[in-house]
Amino acid sequence: MTNPKQRQRVAFQGERGAFSEEAVVGLFDEVELVPKSSFESLFTSIEDGAADYIVAPVENTLAGTVHRCYELLIGSGLKVVGESIVPIRHNLIGCKDASLDSILSAESHPVALAQCLKFLAAHAQIRGVAADDTAASVRRVLESGDRTRAAIGSARAAEIYGGKILKPGIEDHHENYTRFFLLSQEAYVGGDADKISLVMMLPHRPGSLYHALEPFARRGIELFKIESYPIEGKPWEYRFYLDLQNSADSDKMEIALTELNERATEVRILGCYVSARKR
Amino acid sequence: MTNPKQRQRVAFQGERGAFSEEAVVGLFDEVELVPKSSFESLFTSIEDGAADYIVAPVENTLAGTVHRCYELLIGSGLKVVGESIVPIRHNLIGCKDASLDSILSAESHPVALAQCLKFLAAHAQIRGVAADDTAASVRRVLESGDRTRAAIGSARAAEIYGGKILKPGIEDHHENYTRFFLLSQEAYVGGDADKISLVMMLPHRPGSLYHALEPFARRGIELFKIESYPIEGKPWEYRFYLDLQNSADSDKMEIALTELNERATEVRILGCYVSARKR
Repeated sequence: MTNPKQRQRVAFQGERGAFSEEAVVGLFDEVELVPKSSFESLFTSIEDGAADYIVAPVENTLAGTVHRCYELLIGSGLKVVGESIVPIRHNLIGCKDASLDSILSAESHPVALAQCLKFLAAHAQIRGVAADDTAASVRRVLESGDRTRAAIGSARAAEIYGGKILKPGIEDHHENYTRFFLLSQEAYVGGDADKISLVMMLPHRPGSLYHALEPFARRGIELFKIESYPIEGKPWEYRFYLDLQNSADSDKMEIALTELNERATEVRILGCYVSARKR
Repeated sequence: MTNPKQRQRVAFQGERGAFSEEAVVGLFDEVELVPKSSFESLFTSIEDGAADYIVAPVENTLAGTVHRCYELLIGSGLKVVGESIVPIRHNLIGCKDASLDSILSAESHPVALAQCLKFLAAHAQIRGVAADDTAASVRRVLESGDRTRAAIGSARAAEIYGGKILKPGIEDHHENYTRFFLLSQEAYVGGDADKISLVMMLPHRPGSLYHALEPFARRGIELFKIESYPIEGKPWEYRFYLDLQNSADSDKMEIALTELNERATEVRILGCYVSARKR
């Protein structure tokens, strides 16, 4: 990773004010924000010369794994060089002259609406309206100047577009975090990388996963995440996503990975990096 | 499970024409359909006396696991008594006098829109519009009578609401399947149950998953699915969802489960059932 103090161009998916933007500013002191409309255009932004880094969501404590980003990451050949964990706080955002009582609709992405069901149920006059993007919902509501319309989005979006937070923290579950990968064309080379992410495919027979985990279990290497995921175009065949503790003793990890390679059909190291907790 | 030939009341989430409805009619010859607006109201529908069975989505080959349904299933105490695998075919559906050239917008759930990106990119005049439900989008477009509006939904929805399929099979990936659980208050008691689903929590230490899988690996019991999932309210602590081969030798499975119980913090059997492939 180049010096994060330097001004880097960092791409994220969504409009200005998206939760991804919070991940970016948490990772870099000085940054040129490069908003991208889709995950597809996000993942080509380094190749296109538009960005130096990409920040992409991979997991949410309530909604689970963002499989599309894993798919695109595997296809891109980019390396994971960092991670960031962002608390997701949903706010009801309206125009400057709006009040909670004046609001008749709340626009947002359906996933955000689904995370605010208790608030919506307790305020029956407010109808949840599905939209494509949280930050874009905030922008559109404020552009409309309509004091009956609100959007559900981040405090950052309210600030950027000049909205008023009518009710902060309306999410049902406050323990709502999204984990993001920081991606680069070059692997992270620092000796302090304490986490490693990989993807593997296993022979289709009983015990193959048990057998594949043995090299790590035997060496006391901790497993942080595992997930079997259907392989596109091959229903009910699976690949596995794993996050493991990266040993300070790099030989130990190297030997474990060599043993895994002998037991798996395919292993792909996504990257070694400093975990968000240590950052 | 009571006789599926008998007319049962079966609840599903969504409006008439939802993909869940296809799962229901695939499982029962005679059925009284009970549509429910939310997963929350779906999961209380047996308790409320509105339904005899519940059909709920748990996994999609492209979008991954439907965590909310697992959460509600665990909370409900209901038993998995069957499964169904439904191919997801998205169709562009318009009014009777519409044609592909007349369409300016395509309304659907964002997940459906995201699965038809190639079609939308190839038809730049058609704007994707986010809505709360696929079948409801079809119904609303047809109610509007507007020949510039289309919805993306199932062939069944087109038939129910009297729509015209302007373009069938517009999904990017044709290998798109959703897996549904059939749920009941009573466990399945047939001797032909070849699959078992369970949830487990493990001690937080290296090798605990490896150790937990050993009783199954040693007995040649096949693992069909595994997923670590963050526990709500405990960020980055995980529970594990597992689908395993249910042995015809019920003693073998029983001993393996007893051994698992000794190694896990908590094990919860969701149900034994006949897999969709064998049905």
